[in-house]
Amino acid sequence: MWEVLEEDLAAISIGAAAMGTGGGGNAYLGMIHLREQLRSGLRVHVVTPDELRDDWFLLAGGFMGAPVVTYEKLRQGHEEIRAVEALQEHVGRRIDAIAPMEIGGENSMTALSIAAELDIPVVDGDGMGRAFPELQMVTFLMYGGQPWPAALADDKGNAVIIQRVRDARSLERIARAITVEMGGSAGLAMAPMSGAECQRSIVPGTLSLTREIGRAALVARAAKRSTTEAVLSVTGGSRLFRGKVVDVERRLTGGFVVGHIDLEGFDDDAGARVRIDFQNENLILWRDGDAVVSVPDLITLLTTDEGEPVTTELVRYGIRADVVGIPCHPRLATETALRFVGPRAFGYEVEYRPLPRTGVTAERG
Amino acid sequence: MWEVLEEDLAAISIGAAAMGTGGGGNAYLGMIHLREQLRSGLRVHVVTPDELRDDWFLLAGGFMGAPVVTYEKLRQGHEEIRAVEALQEHVGRRIDAIAPMEIGGENSMTALSIAAELDIPVVDGDGMGRAFPELQMVTFLMYGGQPWPAALADDKGNAVIIQRVRDARSLERIARAITVEMGGSAGLAMAPMSGAECQRSIVPGTLSLTREIGRAALVARAAKRSTTEAVLSVTGGSRLFRGKVVDVERRLTGGFVVGHIDLEGFDDDAGARVRIDFQNENLILWRDGDAVVSVPDLITLLTTDEGEPVTTELVRYGIRADVVGIPCHPRLATETALRFVGPRAFGYEVEYRPLPRTGVTAERG
Repeated sequence: MWEVLEEDLAAISIGAAAMGTGGGGNAYLGMIHLREQLRSGLRVHVVTPDELRDDWFLLAGGFMGAPVVTYEKLRQGHEEIRAVEALQEHVGRRIDAIAPMEIGGENSMTALSIAAELDIPVVDGDGMGRAFPELQMVTFLMYGGQPWPAALADDKGNAVIIQRVRDARSLERIARAITVEMGGSAGLAMAPMSGAECQRSIVPGTLSLTREIGRAALVARAAKRSTTEAVLSVTGGSRLFRGKVVDVERRLTGGFVVGHIDLEGFDDDAGARVRIDFQNENLILWRDGDAVVSVPDLITLLTTDEGEPVTTELVRYGIRADVVGIPCHPRLATETALRFVGPRAFGYEVEYRPLPRTGVTAERG
Repeated sequence: MWEVLEEDLAAISIGAAAMGTGGGGNAYLGMIHLREQLRSGLRVHVVTPDELRDDWFLLAGGFMGAPVVTYEKLRQGHEEIRAVEALQEHVGRRIDAIAPMEIGGENSMTALSIAAELDIPVVDGDGMGRAFPELQMVTFLMYGGQPWPAALADDKGNAVIIQRVRDARSLERIARAITVEMGGSAGLAMAPMSGAECQRSIVPGTLSLTREIGRAALVARAAKRSTTEAVLSVTGGSRLFRGKVVDVERRLTGGFVVGHIDLEGFDDDAGARVRIDFQNENLILWRDGDAVVSVPDLITLLTTDEGEPVTTELVRYGIRADVVGIPCHPRLATETALRFVGPRAFGYEVEYRPLPRTGVTAERG
């Protein structure tokens, strides 16, 4: 067990942005909210999956919505807590701990906020091992978890329980329609599970990992060393490309931000060109018609000057960035998982070719 | 208390179509389903609002959706029952009787189907006294009923509980989004209430009234007399216009069918022209720029040959019809009710001018 302290927040926020692979919303806003909570005396204790008691009752918590919306409609920070409370009321049981639904981007912070507010521990791990755009991509559901009940809540006093669904994709579709009606983002509580079920299905250690990534990045930045190298050393990732953004196509459709980013190489990659397709998150890196890296592996852009992760909603012409590939956790690359988060699940007729893992210093559970 | 027999169904279906004021879906399809239920031995008992015990627990039931969808996507007939069961499970109490949400159109039949299936009585009355397009227009809510919880269910095993909403309009918006996602129509259970609350807020006697209207129409048709006159004599309504449909504009927007119908007069109305605006249901009759009749009063088209009620989704060029105005029940014309169902609630800067009631033979509670 460890405690999240105020000085950890900047590091977690940077690491979560890198794990967001271009999506997951703006961790900075969530960080400000959580910092206020900590300053008001609330505390956040982190337990490892091993420390969960088998008979504990848990939910996965976070927010749902196209990340672009989180810039336009600032969340109040209470939607996730309302969603957890709504689901607790529906099932007639209080939760013993909260599991982050998604570690990438803003949702790294929302689970911590829920833990602080409800005075329960947060599990070190999450249901995506990164950010993903849809709910059936949550490992808690992939690995046998029941997709119902789930709860959505907004900041206006509305709360909806999805009491029963045919399957996880139905959960996604219905929850998405409600989220759009709630203004484009909503608090979400889902995947009711026991401690034992959580242990079996969570992507472990990802909260610690975001902190490690962020710390390494902050140290590198202070020492004027390469942030990219620091991120790679912690994650076992590789630099895939260095280039300048020369084209961005982006549209908001069905509650998602969908499009692509074109980069033109410089330094080692001078003369080459790559394209990254995204749906909220970066999905696939194309080079000369070849899918070099794809989901579920992580594709993240880090600016070459400050090492800032670049999000799909803020990326624009002229940004100079390293394209970094990070191998996903093995739990995302099983045959079961690939049906939900492999390239075919996003409509690409492409085989998933795992990105090789380079030397890693951080331990992952 | 009376029992709905198979021979009542045709009459109720015709009366419900007239009370649907152009909307409310196709009562014929619901009738076929209910007839199968009755033939299989299920029974439907009708209780008057006076017969409700104060401490009974009731819900309003029906289906939600643009009526045009009910022609394209045939409902399975179980969605409403699933919705009632979902809400019963959520509140942890079984209902003692079901109140029709809406008597106009298909929803006259859905409440009867629920009653048959769950072996509980149906109340003689409804929450609209006609058909209306939106949920905040239900009298159970207007007169102090709580707009939550409510349940929606489809035929694919999905069920959603709207656990808490800010107000009835939020219920409408959220339920509409879910209904659209469920394929355009869904079973709905709403307005949990006691017997005493139901008595205070229901539009009473409307189920009997549909049967009276239908019987009168059937008798007139058999005797080759005017169906229009028969409907007027039972409802206290007036013939407003006789004409031929010369233009229809209709579009499906936000889950509603919206548009207008233009008629060119013949017989007494030769040379004149009127327009009827609709949103699922006929809303307002314009003649020479003047709003002759408007919501909440009922505007119904009856063909001049067979006396068939004409719906907004099937109306087409060339149909010759009597435009009939029927005074609404007084419970729809109070100051409270007009805020939800008067012309201004539909965006018209028009005062509601009650249609005078002519001599009536049917008793209304």
